Amino acid sequence: KASSEEKQVPLAATLENILHEQEKAWNRGDIDAFMIPYWKSESLTFSSGGETQRGWNATRDRYKARYPNQKTMGKLSFSNLEVQSLGKDAALMLGQWQLQRDEPIGGNFSLVWRREGDRWVIMHDHTSARK
Amino acid sequence: KASSEEKQVPLAATLENILHEQEKAWNRGDIDAFMIPYWKSESLTFSSGGETQRGWNATRDRYKARYPNQKTMGKLSFSNLEVQSLGKDAALMLGQWQLQRDEPIGGNFSLVWRREGDRWVIMHDHTSARK
Repeated sequence: KASSEEKQVPLAATLENILHEQEKAWNRGDIDAFMIPYWKSESLTFSSGGETQRGWNATRDRYKARYPNQKTMGKLSFSNLEVQSLGKDAALMLGQWQLQRDEPIGGNFSLVWRREGDRWVIMHDHTSARK
Repeated sequence: KASSEEKQVPLAATLENILHEQEKAWNRGDIDAFMIPYWKSESLTFSSGGETQRGWNATRDRYKARYPNQKTMGKLSFSNLEVQSLGKDAALMLGQWQLQRDEPIGGNFSLVWRREGDRWVIMHDHTSARK
């Protein structure tokens, strides 16, 4: 009942807020919190560099292996976020990512979101690094 | 009225057939035919290597610049195609691509499809090459 009284937050703002929370989690070195928006399912897929990881656990383990400490994690920032609705239960988000660190890297990503009840989760992530 | 009598083709088969037509177009050196399934819109987005092309014309021009002749185009094959519905008007497809040529390359891709009336079009493509 309370939910009918809540203000309707536009989808783009909802999803952008989730990514801002992810930035904060990353920047305090907390990959477990960074992983919260990813669909906690074996069906989560994460594509990068020609390979696809499957499942939430494998995706988390990949992040932890590639970014073992705050020096490698650097400071993450997302930018140029764009959201397109794909109907009432799915959305596509494009954006760019940057890691400020001794060897800075960055690139772009495509996130496919799905609505699970009143929560939006990332079901697919395709991330590329600039060459 | 005729359409109600047509057999319902499963979504995955519909989209896979479109990609098989794309392979054939590529392998006869016909980038214009290869481009047919892409949404003919300025809103089409194509992400790769940290960059995002916008618009059908820019996407076609990128392909023509990167693959100026059949020697560079090689022989294209798609594999491991997977389709997930995102509601009645959108779908996500993951797959792998290979170019057989003197310097073979390959990788994976994520396609976001949308239904435009009775036709499915690719609205977003994120393609990565293996390192």
